[in-house]
Amino acid sequence: MKDYFSKHRSSDEWLIKEHRWDKKLQPSRESQFALGNGFIGSRGIMEEVPFDARPGTYIAGLYDKTGAQVTELVNLPNPINLKIISGGERLGAGTMDILHHERALDMKHGLLTRHTIYRNSHKKRFDYQSLRFVSMRNKHIIAMQVCITPLDEAATFTVENLLDLSVTNVGFLTEGNKKHFRVEGVSQFDTGEYLAVKTLEKGMLIAYGKSMIIEKGHSSRFARHVTTQIKLRKNQTACITTIFSIFTSDNKDTKKIKPVVKGFLRKSANMGFERILKEHIASWDRLWQASDVRIKGAPHDERSLRFNMYHLLICGREGNGESSIGAKTLSGEGYRGHIFWDAEIFILPFFLYNRPNVAKNMLLYRYHRLNKAMQIAESRGYKGAMFPWESAATGEETTPAWAKNFDGSLIQIRTHEMEHHVTADVAYAVYQYYVATKDIRFMLKCGFEMIFETARFWASRAGYNPKIKKYEIKHVIGPDEFHEDVDNNAYTNSMVYFNLMAACGMYQKMKRLYPKEYRRLSKKIGLKKGEVGEWKRIIPRIALNLKRNGLIEQFDGYFRKRKVKLRNLKKHPIPPIPRSIKLKDVGKTQLVKQADVVMLLYLLPDKFDIKTKKKNFYYYLKRTVHKSSLSAAVHAAIAAEIGNIKMAYRYFDVAANMDLTLLYGNTDDGMHAASLGVTWQAAIHGFAGMKIFNETLSINPRLPEAWKEISFCLKWQGYNLKIAINHTKVNVQFYSKRKDFLKIKVYNILRKIEADKAYNFPRKRGG
Amino acid sequence: MKDYFSKHRSSDEWLIKEHRWDKKLQPSRESQFALGNGFIGSRGIMEEVPFDARPGTYIAGLYDKTGAQVTELVNLPNPINLKIISGGERLGAGTMDILHHERALDMKHGLLTRHTIYRNSHKKRFDYQSLRFVSMRNKHIIAMQVCITPLDEAATFTVENLLDLSVTNVGFLTEGNKKHFRVEGVSQFDTGEYLAVKTLEKGMLIAYGKSMIIEKGHSSRFARHVTTQIKLRKNQTACITTIFSIFTSDNKDTKKIKPVVKGFLRKSANMGFERILKEHIASWDRLWQASDVRIKGAPHDERSLRFNMYHLLICGREGNGESSIGAKTLSGEGYRGHIFWDAEIFILPFFLYNRPNVAKNMLLYRYHRLNKAMQIAESRGYKGAMFPWESAATGEETTPAWAKNFDGSLIQIRTHEMEHHVTADVAYAVYQYYVATKDIRFMLKCGFEMIFETARFWASRAGYNPKIKKYEIKHVIGPDEFHEDVDNNAYTNSMVYFNLMAACGMYQKMKRLYPKEYRRLSKKIGLKKGEVGEWKRIIPRIALNLKRNGLIEQFDGYFRKRKVKLRNLKKHPIPPIPRSIKLKDVGKTQLVKQADVVMLLYLLPDKFDIKTKKKNFYYYLKRTVHKSSLSAAVHAAIAAEIGNIKMAYRYFDVAANMDLTLLYGNTDDGMHAASLGVTWQAAIHGFAGMKIFNETLSINPRLPEAWKEISFCLKWQGYNLKIAINHTKVNVQFYSKRKDFLKIKVYNILRKIEADKAYNFPRKRGG
Repeated sequence: MKDYFSKHRSSDEWLIKEHRWDKKLQPSRESQFALGNGFIGSRGIMEEVPFDARPGTYIAGLYDKTGAQVTELVNLPNPINLKIISGGERLGAGTMDILHHERALDMKHGLLTRHTIYRNSHKKRFDYQSLRFVSMRNKHIIAMQVCITPLDEAATFTVENLLDLSVTNVGFLTEGNKKHFRVEGVSQFDTGEYLAVKTLEKGMLIAYGKSMIIEKGHSSRFARHVTTQIKLRKNQTACITTIFSIFTSDNKDTKKIKPVVKGFLRKSANMGFERILKEHIASWDRLWQASDVRIKGAPHDERSLRFNMYHLLICGREGNGESSIGAKTLSGEGYRGHIFWDAEIFILPFFLYNRPNVAKNMLLYRYHRLNKAMQIAESRGYKGAMFPWESAATGEETTPAWAKNFDGSLIQIRTHEMEHHVTADVAYAVYQYYVATKDIRFMLKCGFEMIFETARFWASRAGYNPKIKKYEIKHVIGPDEFHEDVDNNAYTNSMVYFNLMAACGMYQKMKRLYPKEYRRLSKKIGLKKGEVGEWKRIIPRIALNLKRNGLIEQFDGYFRKRKVKLRNLKKHPIPPIPRSIKLKDVGKTQLVKQADVVMLLYLLPDKFDIKTKKKNFYYYLKRTVHKSSLSAAVHAAIAAEIGNIKMAYRYFDVAANMDLTLLYGNTDDGMHAASLGVTWQAAIHGFAGMKIFNETLSINPRLPEAWKEISFCLKWQGYNLKIAINHTKVNVQFYSKRKDFLKIKVYNILRKIEADKAYNFPRKRGG
Repeated sequence: MKDYFSKHRSSDEWLIKEHRWDKKLQPSRESQFALGNGFIGSRGIMEEVPFDARPGTYIAGLYDKTGAQVTELVNLPNPINLKIISGGERLGAGTMDILHHERALDMKHGLLTRHTIYRNSHKKRFDYQSLRFVSMRNKHIIAMQVCITPLDEAATFTVENLLDLSVTNVGFLTEGNKKHFRVEGVSQFDTGEYLAVKTLEKGMLIAYGKSMIIEKGHSSRFARHVTTQIKLRKNQTACITTIFSIFTSDNKDTKKIKPVVKGFLRKSANMGFERILKEHIASWDRLWQASDVRIKGAPHDERSLRFNMYHLLICGREGNGESSIGAKTLSGEGYRGHIFWDAEIFILPFFLYNRPNVAKNMLLYRYHRLNKAMQIAESRGYKGAMFPWESAATGEETTPAWAKNFDGSLIQIRTHEMEHHVTADVAYAVYQYYVATKDIRFMLKCGFEMIFETARFWASRAGYNPKIKKYEIKHVIGPDEFHEDVDNNAYTNSMVYFNLMAACGMYQKMKRLYPKEYRRLSKKIGLKKGEVGEWKRIIPRIALNLKRNGLIEQFDGYFRKRKVKLRNLKKHPIPPIPRSIKLKDVGKTQLVKQADVVMLLYLLPDKFDIKTKKKNFYYYLKRTVHKSSLSAAVHAAIAAEIGNIKMAYRYFDVAANMDLTLLYGNTDDGMHAASLGVTWQAAIHGFAGMKIFNETLSINPRLPEAWKEISFCLKWQGYNLKIAINHTKVNVQFYSKRKDFLKIKVYNILRKIEADKAYNFPRKRGG
């Protein structure tokens, strides 16, 4: 049988495959095989939509609350819904026997291909091949091609292609399934069909266009109805090409949307599938050219890492802050598509060094919701801006206040009341963005204001305790959510320290270098010198919990919690909670859900020396159960830094394959976005040792034994760097149109390098 | 708590109730609680559409094939879809705790009422009451009223009422779920909403209108959006009234349908719910006035019988033959809504004697498809008209040719190839209709032609065997489908005998009394005297298999099949197939699936004397496993006739409660239509002993001991009869505007009775 799509398929190291259809794995595969372009996210369902498939079509930033406890990412009508029927039997998993089946996600070009051989009840076989993609070139396009061939005798097929309106959002226990849209309009164009739906709460319009062309031999025709007949001789092939377009009223005036869709569809039909595909592939080639990480000697690691990067690339969006990236990307409905600190701390760095405009978009998302953050602060009696723990369209707090357990009991959710570090995390990301991009325009328009308003929040949030002469931050939850309502969480307090430091530094800088803009801003937000003076007073007095023995106490009283030692960590890098401890009592013990102090070591690398890092890492490692996807890769990065490469490699392996091995059992409701991002960080910040110390890019690699070489690109302050690292040297080069130089640290030695020149820095012996 | 709908609720003997919500029973309850008016059938789902509910909205005669092996009754968009949400929790089974729950189907007035008390996760209670109906007065209306009251504190509700487009037809193994419609148009009226869908195969348009009014205290308002907010104080009640209208392009020109819906909706809104309800109730009162059967002394039997009659009444339709009644009524998708011999033989008699226009409609359904029946005959090399074993919209054969077993094996279905008796069954029904109504207009327009064309078919179907000097009908399946491809099935051959006899009789009558119409018809169908002569030759020579010992052999060679005796029939009126016999071998035994010879005894009562009936009844009873819902009530009727009242009562009980006890395990896909009809027959033809002998109405009752009196109405040859029977006498009266008389037989004595006069005929001692 001819393989129709082999010409588009990349080599094996770029492919994630399934070799058989497994009903149980279906929902996870749909997440893994998701396609997207930052605007549209589309779950990797099979085109025939088998009985228990979970179609998911999401648009970044498009939320609706109707029928739900809190607003959620809307599951929109599903375009991928191609029913092919012959003799009353549907070509589909569950309806025909499957003699052969393979699907491959081509990560290089964002293509999902499939080859299935079906056998019907009368033992006649049909060859089925498909290719589909969500265009990376034009964010409004989804395209699909399906080739069918009867292998044993002539056959007549009914092809049905309805935009599937049956879709609902997954039901939570107390909500049931929710439909977030209603049909607003339908009509027929000469080249296809039109469907518009409106969200129920906010009346957002989403308009679909669809055109289908059927090719058979040398003839081709538009399918002018949702059902069409195809007669094929034995071994004759028909090729069904469908192009979908999706627009929202965000993009276009409501009244104009229909002609826009119509025009767009005609244009796409004229362009043809092949050209749309070609442009899509070219866009992906450009993306990978700027982002790919190659690992010689470890093709498995390279592929896993790419899988993580692929899923980041399909949800990254350059824009004006319309949306950010949710905790499950756009590949599922987990966490209702909400934005957490995951966005700024775990996901943003990948984009910062590869697609800085996506990072900017994520920060603009926060900036455009700064007013809401100020309202949140005000409503709780604080000043400045307090970002919500969970954020969606408006920037209001969208954390559900409670959830119901299957046993009927009510779980109070307190993260939004107490997990305040997110506000410092956003400020941290703004600062990182500034350092990595030197994008002063962003800072003047948004960044300084964000840093000042967050600092202002913390100044009002911290309370001075005259007894110990410290500023304390009480009643918080740190990253480790096992311990609620704690005082002086080291992570939170240190991030506040950083936030205030950054604010003071930025204040000086802005006043000095941009006096006009400073005057405008200080007038706008009423910032006075005295307030900055207060920040300066607070900074040295923040309780940081660094004890004399070098140990950092996670929060006040942590050391007095019940000791529980986890064993066999070498065998089980992700240890189970000992059975003797009930889940409700876990807060009484020293067990830690995820990197907390270790997170701090990771985010503020120049605040601690190696000895302190080692001490704290091993101390908390023995207490951490990694019951969060945010934990493993951070441990990998720190383990690499302190020289325990074997352990680092083990945690990297866990993190990089998290959604391939279905480690947390909930890949079905979407990819773990934070882990995707921090896996890249573990490779680049951890093994390749690329870090920013005092605003200087530093490379201090410690590669796993198996890795012969790691090579990657970086964007740094407007330059494109190319870096290749092996066990003996670091090769660096950067590109610039002007004659230019850069100062970077390699193996802890500051080097000045010129543009367009390759440098080889050898590792010192024993270094 | 006030019971809002108690004023409309009938007394207990008219109610079928559920007292708790049982997820497992949900699909069966939906069938049992179905509402309808002959045009619309609507499954008794709960308004919130719980997770695994199976909404079903059907229009009689509306079939579509797309995606299915054979055409099927279309499951249309579901209007009953009211989501009420408070604080992110849905008032619904599965989403809130249920503290109290009761639903009642009021069979007297076709009302489904409900009272549920919900408790949310925060232990706050909500009172929920609902009433809904499918108007018996105006076939286009479905109406619903829901009252909600927060019992513990003030609450805000979001009410969402989307016409539910998610609906699909149930998937058969090889088909998967099928969607048979697409959205054609949506719009908003000032008093409500409009939605039109089109079926995929035939492009039939179905247009919905919807208007919703929300009343709270003394204020009321139209809900102008699909979602609306209601704020209520503690113990304050809001009442949500929704009126739906459904039109099809059958009723109206496609272009005119929208203004029709709009006008209709405005008119209905002006009328108001209460008046629509009042008229609906009045229509039901008229229906029962003409059809009710009262059984003194056995309220349980009376209620069960009414349950059967209720389900017949909601699918009976007066019309021009647009549709007939499918094997599962309009309450589910079993048998894909197809029309079998069940319609004419099992269902039609109820209507014949209660609503003759519905019976006429069922025969018109066949008449309008007579051409197709002639094509079927022709395609198989026969003459005349051969009705399809399964029939749907067009009258073509729609029996699926095969089905796939769960083990993957293929089951060949041969009923359409061989179960030819349906053609004689239709002719039989035409004859019965004529005798009971004397509707000569129907006969001249349709009936004679049907009887002649069916007779013509049989003349070509029967083959003369010179060896035995008999006309034989080979290669058939009788009612007993365990035995395929048999020769000279006694039932089939006797019905053919009847068909030919009727044709000869009708030929004489028509020629004599209606010579003009005869000439027109004989010219049209080319009927010549010689052909009738051939029928006359065949009649006495048809092989009838009545043996000398009085036993009727079910088919040639039946007596030589392996003997299997069923035991414990007194304990188990529906005996299991002995485990020693494999299902595939059942055709090699004498086991009979359902009444076959007994069916013959029943349908042709004056052909056999009591002795023959007794002999054959007991002989086959010991061999019949009743693996068909068509069997029990027929056995009840014959058992009553031969005087075994105890046994008759046992089979009546089985039949009358079949869909209440879920005997066959498939009530979830609809009510057993044939059993509904033949249960009524068992009561009236069996116990009340009302039969037609030689075109004379005869009453020869044999009541079960528990029944003190049975009283009922009958339509007979244009008169309304009222009959009351107890163990000692028969009371008869008939009504006529003219001075008139009737001849009927009571206790085997011919009586002449005058109109408007009550007669009491005492039972003879020992009679």
